[in-house]
Amino acid sequence: MPPTDFTFKPIGTVRHRSAEVPRHWSVSEVEGELVINADLVDGLKDIQAGQRIIVLFHFHKSPPFGPGLLTQKPPRRKSKKGVFSICSPVRPNPLGMSVVEVIEVRANVIRVKGLDMLDETPILDIKPYIESSGGR
Amino acid sequence: MPPTDFTFKPIGTVRHRSAEVPRHWSVSEVEGELVINADLVDGLKDIQAGQRIIVLFHFHKSPPFGPGLLTQKPPRRKSKKGVFSICSPVRPNPLGMSVVEVIEVRANVIRVKGLDMLDETPILDIKPYIESSGGR
Repeated sequence: MPPTDFTFKPIGTVRHRSAEVPRHWSVSEVEGELVINADLVDGLKDIQAGQRIIVLFHFHKSPPFGPGLLTQKPPRRKSKKGVFSICSPVRPNPLGMSVVEVIEVRANVIRVKGLDMLDETPILDIKPYIESSGGR
Repeated sequence: MPPTDFTFKPIGTVRHRSAEVPRHWSVSEVEGELVINADLVDGLKDIQAGQRIIVLFHFHKSPPFGPGLLTQKPPRRKSKKGVFSICSPVRPNPLGMSVVEVIEVRANVIRVKGLDMLDETPILDIKPYIESSGGR
């Protein structure tokens, strides 16, 4: 039997002071900080200003998911779309992914631009942003 | 107190018959299937052939993470890099992210190209692939 669930612990927390955040990182200018747990600081050593990074996070304010939410009407759309084709925070697993730009790294704090997460969002992973090769 | 851990359940499983997979999706031509749980099929309705999609998954074969793995030497590199700047499957949270191309969708099975996951990898989420605006 394959495992039926997986448990993850936050590696840090998103902090910012914007009262509102855009619906998507691709249109966000919001600045703030990724405050990473101090015991993980060695893992940040190659993150540099000017880079883009991928942030995986937990949609910590999402209501529980149910079958009625498999299709949802996104804001500014006229019809419902399948949940796996939209960026809704209400999903079978409340996992979020954003691409943000690094402004500065100081010890365990990464200052970034382009946030679309709520303040206090738990961060689960940071990955390098790698452009998809257009050729495939 | 913020929550200290989060539990996710797989939404499906990666299936393919390749004995080996490339280290990264950006160089992969491997074809296979994302077999999504049948009860979630309505969520797939807008996924179409030719699209790219983001797949979040669980690195189910990774050994446990420890502080000694905060920096790792990637294959073909000479020096160690911080874990958050590389794509290693051995990470504080064993979460993977790949971009694959949809070949065909039949009911709850998405045939794709560009896999870099092992056969039987548990899938946690599928998201639309949105190109980062170069202007930010």
